[in-house]
Amino acid sequence: MFESAELGHKIAKEVYKREVPPLREALLDAQLDLLQSKKFPVIILLAGVDCAGKGETMNLLHEWMDPRHIESHALRELTDEERERPPMWRYWRDLPPQGKIGIFIGSWYSAPLVDNVYGTTKNAELDQQLDRIIRFETMLCNEGALILKFWLHLSEKQQKKRLKKLESDPKTRWRIKESDWKNFKLYDRFRTVSERMLRTTSTPEAPWTIVEGADERYRSLTIGKVLLEAIRNRLDAPEPPKQEEPLPPMLTSIDGLHILQTLDLTHKLSKQNYKAELAALQGRLNQLSRHKNFNKLSVVALFEGNDAAGKGGSIRRITQALDARSYRIIPVAAPTEEERAQPYMWRFWRHLPRRGRVAIFDRSWYGRVLVERVEGYCSHGDWMRAYGEINDFEEQLVRNRTVVVKFWLAISKQEQLKRFKEREKIGFKRFKITEEDWRNRDKWDLYEQAVCDMIDRTSTEIAPWTLVEANDKNYARIKILTTVCNRIEQALEKL
Amino acid sequence: MFESAELGHKIAKEVYKREVPPLREALLDAQLDLLQSKKFPVIILLAGVDCAGKGETMNLLHEWMDPRHIESHALRELTDEERERPPMWRYWRDLPPQGKIGIFIGSWYSAPLVDNVYGTTKNAELDQQLDRIIRFETMLCNEGALILKFWLHLSEKQQKKRLKKLESDPKTRWRIKESDWKNFKLYDRFRTVSERMLRTTSTPEAPWTIVEGADERYRSLTIGKVLLEAIRNRLDAPEPPKQEEPLPPMLTSIDGLHILQTLDLTHKLSKQNYKAELAALQGRLNQLSRHKNFNKLSVVALFEGNDAAGKGGSIRRITQALDARSYRIIPVAAPTEEERAQPYMWRFWRHLPRRGRVAIFDRSWYGRVLVERVEGYCSHGDWMRAYGEINDFEEQLVRNRTVVVKFWLAISKQEQLKRFKEREKIGFKRFKITEEDWRNRDKWDLYEQAVCDMIDRTSTEIAPWTLVEANDKNYARIKILTTVCNRIEQALEKL
Repeated sequence: MFESAELGHKIAKEVYKREVPPLREALLDAQLDLLQSKKFPVIILLAGVDCAGKGETMNLLHEWMDPRHIESHALRELTDEERERPPMWRYWRDLPPQGKIGIFIGSWYSAPLVDNVYGTTKNAELDQQLDRIIRFETMLCNEGALILKFWLHLSEKQQKKRLKKLESDPKTRWRIKESDWKNFKLYDRFRTVSERMLRTTSTPEAPWTIVEGADERYRSLTIGKVLLEAIRNRLDAPEPPKQEEPLPPMLTSIDGLHILQTLDLTHKLSKQNYKAELAALQGRLNQLSRHKNFNKLSVVALFEGNDAAGKGGSIRRITQALDARSYRIIPVAAPTEEERAQPYMWRFWRHLPRRGRVAIFDRSWYGRVLVERVEGYCSHGDWMRAYGEINDFEEQLVRNRTVVVKFWLAISKQEQLKRFKEREKIGFKRFKITEEDWRNRDKWDLYEQAVCDMIDRTSTEIAPWTLVEANDKNYARIKILTTVCNRIEQALEKL
Repeated sequence: MFESAELGHKIAKEVYKREVPPLREALLDAQLDLLQSKKFPVIILLAGVDCAGKGETMNLLHEWMDPRHIESHALRELTDEERERPPMWRYWRDLPPQGKIGIFIGSWYSAPLVDNVYGTTKNAELDQQLDRIIRFETMLCNEGALILKFWLHLSEKQQKKRLKKLESDPKTRWRIKESDWKNFKLYDRFRTVSERMLRTTSTPEAPWTIVEGADERYRSLTIGKVLLEAIRNRLDAPEPPKQEEPLPPMLTSIDGLHILQTLDLTHKLSKQNYKAELAALQGRLNQLSRHKNFNKLSVVALFEGNDAAGKGGSIRRITQALDARSYRIIPVAAPTEEERAQPYMWRFWRHLPRRGRVAIFDRSWYGRVLVERVEGYCSHGDWMRAYGEINDFEEQLVRNRTVVVKFWLAISKQEQLKRFKEREKIGFKRFKITEEDWRNRDKWDLYEQAVCDMIDRTSTEIAPWTLVEANDKNYARIKILTTVCNRIEQALEKL
């Protein structure tokens, strides 16, 4: 795998001097076209052997292109902010938007590699991590990103020479850390694990390019040319046609029976009982949020449901029990310009709560498989792959000790009609009802099918859906509060 | 995930009677169209809870369609034949060709599920196995297969009822094994692991369809309808356009230096030395093949190289040292009709050797990334994904204790010309040189690039390439024999 990167590749000074100017010009052109077209983001990973020229390459690319439209990210210690979120959060933050170039030194590959070399993880765990990486990159590619992964390689001899040279020069001595020599002693082990890693994660859409790092001119010119060709090819390619191979069909209930019908919407709670239970539950939730271990957890609660099913009111009953500093409500509406320039899930990643905090999503990432599916805002393939992406996302949350509570608030078609009419009548509620609500109502059956599919595919043991019979608001609110309390309590017990 | 399959779905007898005849007719039609068009193979997996109706469904599908064009495979004890090959070998054997339908009861999912439930494997290992399954199914889909995965579900109560019923009837008592009750006691654990498995492996191209198994009519009609819709959709869809999103470029050497150039083709061995070394090495190889542990291994040796580089002669020098019963030479030429109706790798899987046997491939699966790439016999995406598929394949071999030895025989362009002319002159060698050889020669540089890419992407620590300087046949043969002996010896030592 590294054979071709140990041949002693070299580029003569004259050749370099001749070839760089036109390359720089072409790169600048490509960067400008990319910026204007906003067709896709470019994600460049610079990885490889210590001292093989990752930093130099990053600097050079800034020099060769317009640095205002390049975002660079070097691996560094995790911040407090980052430590409290799932490991991939930091990278989601750093994703370049469409039209821009993001360069990563050290990336999602760094920790899996080092952990395995130093024996912290077994091979099966490494494979598990690499599999998650492949899923992540596949998602990025499906969302249109161009991913270029460069592995800068040095043979054992070359690395030793380079370490010594840097160390002997007072101007560069600071660059050599103790860990560099420690890693060097494990050269063979690094080589073996890197090979496994590169082999497993070299996909046709996001292949690794292995570059010999010893000769600076060769290294720079090679990376520049690959980069140019990749961006240019994608920019100049005609839009691929939208027609997709048909996907296998989803199960539709042939006997008309589905899970939403099994809900008993006649459940009711008297005002008196409601008041008593509400007070008790809010007290309990408040106490839980003050539990000494609560700051070892995060809570993500999300609300989906029929229009006018009472999401807002339910959310308020939760937040009334919480310290205002500890929660945030995220109303999910049309994405902002910035969000549209990122992968679909980006707008949710950005709102993940820290430890000890509660994030409440009023509508959520499930929009992809509900409204976007029904209204045709995305392609069949897009929403079909969303189920898997959502499960991956929630699994990361749970693995990071987040309590994920998901509510579907269900009302009958009749009850909805009643509430719509009520809203139209009452002045201060009129803003809540729009033409769109009526249009959605016409598609009741399609939405119902989408909800059933969503539950079937995303109600998992680690992040189950709670279906809430919401014709009676009192009953619904108590069921929701009870569920939230129980789930947090279970999580605290498990710690 | 199983919620919708625990609702008590039911189909009334009259409805069933009315709907089955047109469904059967449509299924038969679809099957016939499939058979005639030979567009794709259909792979149906029937999995799920014990006694949920897998066997009944298989029988029913045979009844509803033309059983001559359905191939059924029920999980059973491994045969001797199968035990000596990688675990996936049995499934490769059983893959239906284009135009046919293959039904599997128990499949590549069975062992991973049971092993994890009974604690033989940890979760990380399970994920590793599921990842391999995804890669396998992705490959099948990329090769055009339609995969339909049905999970027949019963709630705990339903399953208990069903087990008791079967047991109480003398006619069906034989169906209940002790293991059924043993598994039933682990119902919750099975449910948890199944959920993880279904969630992870439900891809847009090969999603799981979860079917409630308790009511026979509901179950049968549902599966029949999903099957019909899936086949019909694919048959009736217009050919998706060939145009692909451009893939990131591959590295081409910018300084003209590449790995084949680093070979010193002037290596020579005198006739006398050759004879002595040949005798010694053949003796050593013979002894190794009689080693008491040799039958714990398999050997796969493959030969690729420039035309006229001396593959045949080298192979003969190996086989001369072996018992004719213990080896097979597989000359890889144009695929047969049967092979063309299968995924690309199928034609190689079928020739994998048993334990204690040697399979020698004269040309190999690398044709995909050499001749097929250069001559444009397959698409860019096809050969790009082949690197990963090949690495997966060889990894399975190595994991199954197969010694994989790969030779690239390199001669200079000049030496090739000499040999071509010689072949044209000598009568008994004339069959060895064709128009095609001359045409290939014109594309020398393209082939060279393909070879370098192949080595970079598939020379792995577990299955490295050996580059053989073959201008001198004596030198080449000795290097090859030495390598074969060393690799077998190392493998024997590691046992």
